[in-house]
Amino acid sequence: MKIKKVCVLGAGTLGTRVALQAALSGYEVSLYDINLKSLKSAKEVMETIVTKLAKASGLESESGLMAIEKITFTKDPKVAVHEADIINESVLEEVSVKTEVWKLFGEIAPEKTIFTTNTSYLLPSMFAEVSGRPSRFCALHFHDVFTAKVVDIMPHPGTDPALIPLLMDFGRSLEQVPVLVKKENNGYIFNTMLMSFIGAAGKLLVNDIASIEDIDKSWMVNFNMPKGPFGILDTIGLETAWHVTKNQPDKASQAFAALLKTYVDAGKLGEKSGEGFYKYPKPKYKNPDFLV
Amino acid sequence: MKIKKVCVLGAGTLGTRVALQAALSGYEVSLYDINLKSLKSAKEVMETIVTKLAKASGLESESGLMAIEKITFTKDPKVAVHEADIINESVLEEVSVKTEVWKLFGEIAPEKTIFTTNTSYLLPSMFAEVSGRPSRFCALHFHDVFTAKVVDIMPHPGTDPALIPLLMDFGRSLEQVPVLVKKENNGYIFNTMLMSFIGAAGKLLVNDIASIEDIDKSWMVNFNMPKGPFGILDTIGLETAWHVTKNQPDKASQAFAALLKTYVDAGKLGEKSGEGFYKYPKPKYKNPDFLV
Ligand SMILES: NC(=O)c1ccc[n+]([C@@H]2O[C@H](COP(=O)([O-])OP(=O)(O)OC[C@H]3O[C@@H](n4cnc5c(N)ncnc54)[C@H](O)[C@@H]3O)[C@@H](O)[C@H]2O)c1
Ligand SMILES: NC(=O)c1ccc[n+]([C@@H]2O[C@H](COP(=O)([O-])OP(=O)(O)OC[C@H]3O[C@@H](n4cnc5c(N)ncnc54)[C@H](O)[C@@H]3O)[C@@H](O)[C@H]2O)c1
Repeated sequence: MKIKKVCVLGAGTLGTRVALQAALSGYEVSLYDINLKSLKSAKEVMETIVTKLAKASGLESESGLMAIEKITFTKDPKVAVHEADIINESVLEEVSVKTEVWKLFGEIAPEKTIFTTNTSYLLPSMFAEVSGRPSRFCALHFHDVFTAKVVDIMPHPGTDPALIPLLMDFGRSLEQVPVLVKKENNGYIFNTMLMSFIGAAGKLLVNDIASIEDIDKSWMVNFNMPKGPFGILDTIGLETAWHVTKNQPDKASQAFAALLKTYVDAGKLGEKSGEGFYKYPKPKYKNPDFLV
Repeated sequence: MKIKKVCVLGAGTLGTRVALQAALSGYEVSLYDINLKSLKSAKEVMETIVTKLAKASGLESESGLMAIEKITFTKDPKVAVHEADIINESVLEEVSVKTEVWKLFGEIAPEKTIFTTNTSYLLPSMFAEVSGRPSRFCALHFHDVFTAKVVDIMPHPGTDPALIPLLMDFGRSLEQVPVLVKKENNGYIFNTMLMSFIGAAGKLLVNDIASIEDIDKSWMVNFNMPKGPFGILDTIGLETAWHVTKNQPDKASQAFAALLKTYVDAGKLGEKSGEGFYKYPKPKYKNPDFLV
């Protein structure tokens, strides 16, 4: 089967990016959300991304802007899913919301449609049955599409294995590097490693082994990276990090979760709120003399 | 006090690099080892490093080679420690060997000499007393000196706090970025995070969640890094990794340690033996089409 039409559910941070990349890759694209505001701001965000990408590559942004114009932005589920070959779902990370959405789309989607979810920490098996199409249900999990270009393909036990090479090729056509998560795993591959090293950083901090700055410096200098774990946490968002960390039972994670909570309660959510472990838009770690 | 003469104990991988950087930074340097072969090959390794550094920076290697000529390579402890302001110890990572060395140098070193150890996973408090100079004893831990330029300064409870700023400045004079490990911690800062993310990678592998290649790809692509965890393990050396991993009590670490042991037993020690998780000198992950 050949994928021609891509239907993206959820016009938030991630859905916007997936829909944009699909349009840039030449697919017919619809983007669905229950919230008109999300749909409106999705289009603006896409235009900003296209302009930035064009600037970075020294090309004109025209063809990108034209691709955006061809996207169907809609709050009508039937319009969204019309003739869709694949759905990639990026609605709110809540079991109840995703359940409701998959129930709805399971009923109205054409028979041919492949179902994929972008969930970060839930599992495809949680929604496969309710979608009514378990064998054609799989996780297809992007990172940020334009800089972190891994796409995880994670089947649940009931996924038809024939879906996997198809999704691999689809990922490649979206300029991503596909990797196979052979069995269901919370956090896939990258997020598992990421949260583990960030957990170790949190443990060093709450055990008063080293300062935020010295922990970040260690990572940045030895790995020649632009951010350390606390800089990365500010980008991920401290609320998301708190949700993930509080579910880990060990003492150090609990202590780190409690620390994250004090930031969240103080409105310090990271980059997006202007402050987290660092202050934005000019965090200390971007200062050339941070690394001395 | 001003540091003029640096005495490095142990002319292996790390001691060679510390001694070379100290010489390049203008210090008077002695390099001590019980093994004449180590001393001989240390000099050759230094010459190779200086030639490479010169090539990379487009400069002549002459001044670097002259700095090497001024180093005292010796198996005589008294000659080595003569007028030394600081000792940095990089002998074998064995409690008995380090104990013996610190006992010897504690007896013969001038009164002014500061004592520092480069131990990777042991603690300074294990040798502070036997050196006879606990308040002037501290860990000063380098990574690889020329590319990973963090230096950890880790006092034990009896270290004189006045030593810390002095060691910070000394680290900077060696072109390193100093970080303070406020309390003794096995693995300092960077190694703690490194071993934690590598442990997570090992767990993904032994639990058959993903392949070596897909785990490495995930890290390399999303973080834009030249190696993933298994490529990094090949550089660290699988024997070292096995030693560290087998001391972790949890089931996944034990399973990963057992896997590492099968590589070690088969002589697959990583980069230095020509094979580990990948084959060298042309590992798969350096192939341009690895990331597709
Ligand atoms: N943000 C990321 O970097 C990222 C990365 C990988 C995966 N994800 C996953 O993608 C999903 C979305 O994350 P996000 O960061 O884009 O969230 P977001 O909060 O930015 O967007 C969620 C969107 O879902 C919409 N929505 C809520 N209920 C809905 C419903 N019933 N029907 C249709 N739309 C509905 C909201 O209006 C909103 O626009 C989550 O599952 C998340 O785990 C996010
Ligand atoms: N290799 C690294 O990347 C690295 C990084 C940080 C710290 N370290 C630490 O540095 C120390 C040395 O590691 P290495 O990798 O250079 O080891 P190595 O095996 O390459 O070198 C050890 C040297 O110690 C010498 N030696 C053994 N017994 C001795 C004695 N009684 N007196 C004097 N010299 C003796 C040996 O002849 C050998 O030359 C260890 O404590 C290690 O944990 C190593």
